[in-house]
Amino acid sequence: METKAPTDFTRLRRMHERGHYDRDSVHAILDAAPTCHVGHIIKDRPVVIPTLHWREGDAVYWHGSAASRMLRANAAGGEVCLTATILDGYVLARSGFHHSINYRSVMCFGTPRLITDDDEKLASLKAFMDRLFPGRWDALRPVNAQELKATSILWMPLTEASAKVRSGPPGDDPEDVTWPIWGGVLPVQASAGAPQPDAHVNGGFVPPATPLV
Amino acid sequence: METKAPTDFTRLRRMHERGHYDRDSVHAILDAAPTCHVGHIIKDRPVVIPTLHWREGDAVYWHGSAASRMLRANAAGGEVCLTATILDGYVLARSGFHHSINYRSVMCFGTPRLITDDDEKLASLKAFMDRLFPGRWDALRPVNAQELKATSILWMPLTEASAKVRSGPPGDDPEDVTWPIWGGVLPVQASAGAPQPDAHVNGGFVPPATPLV
Repeated sequence: METKAPTDFTRLRRMHERGHYDRDSVHAILDAAPTCHVGHIIKDRPVVIPTLHWREGDAVYWHGSAASRMLRANAAGGEVCLTATILDGYVLARSGFHHSINYRSVMCFGTPRLITDDDEKLASLKAFMDRLFPGRWDALRPVNAQELKATSILWMPLTEASAKVRSGPPGDDPEDVTWPIWGGVLPVQASAGAPQPDAHVNGGFVPPATPLV
Repeated sequence: METKAPTDFTRLRRMHERGHYDRDSVHAILDAAPTCHVGHIIKDRPVVIPTLHWREGDAVYWHGSAASRMLRANAAGGEVCLTATILDGYVLARSGFHHSINYRSVMCFGTPRLITDDDEKLASLKAFMDRLFPGRWDALRPVNAQELKATSILWMPLTEASAKVRSGPPGDDPEDVTWPIWGGVLPVQASAGAPQPDAHVNGGFVPPATPLV
């Protein structure tokens, strides 16, 4: 696996055993996380905005309204930190101190670029839809010029990225393991509820599956 | 409901109908979200770190190792943006443009303060545990002085906070609703898996329930 040399920002300072700098780890977590949080500096203040992302090769993409503050801040050339986290479970120890969570998280630093070419924008929006609902794109009412203009797509290469993972049982102090209380992991996962067709759905159309839940 | 006057940073610029500035909306989403992402400015770069938070009254709290970069940055008096997001579902329209997600999100700006008093720290850690596993705190091996010293707790008042919520069916263009494809909402929720006791659990101890899944 190709490794990304950790920088001053991606190198783990603590809990070093939780850090992963290889490309596959970063990709797998970005692909599995439905949402991410993008941090910007706007007027000298940190601003963290939730959004959906997708990955193409060794780059991460996200989109938004061309009119949004986030997109305008990015278009101005500011750097971002895109962090995506999946909660996998609660880790229950015998002491409060050793309680934890199991999780997978990636942190990606970079300066986003705007896609300006219409064909590239369309191809990238298709990739976005394919990630969520494979095959749906081609069956949708096609994108029109006005919609394409109103949609901005940002991307950045994953040149400064790292993954952090915790898994497994609690790490109790040895003298605590007989303390009279349950210890272990309570797993958490996302699950899909029953599809809710809107008022316009006729019989014969079925909801798509998504690989993300 | 008491309202928080929106500031230049919490006022929604777009999709105004999704914005909520009342205290109850902000509190309810913070209470329901298991995790949050905290954005800092460290060496002039945005850095977004996932963590667990809890709320006491009209303030939000989070904790970490006293040795962590995040905590050191906060202790230096820097401002943060704490954003917590709950994904409630995928919104599938007949056009790519009107696809969306249903979600609840809060964005809280402020300058965190460190709790320095040991009794206050202990009380706040108990509140944290009570949120996740009500009643567990009193049954745990008590916190010792070294652990308390190694744990930093940050908090900030919710004076500049806003909530953003999307719910309901897709907002297709009227001429698209007969397009031959399924439209509606695919709900998503967190669900608990089977508890995984660790190697030290004897019979007689049962895993606690958490209100968060």
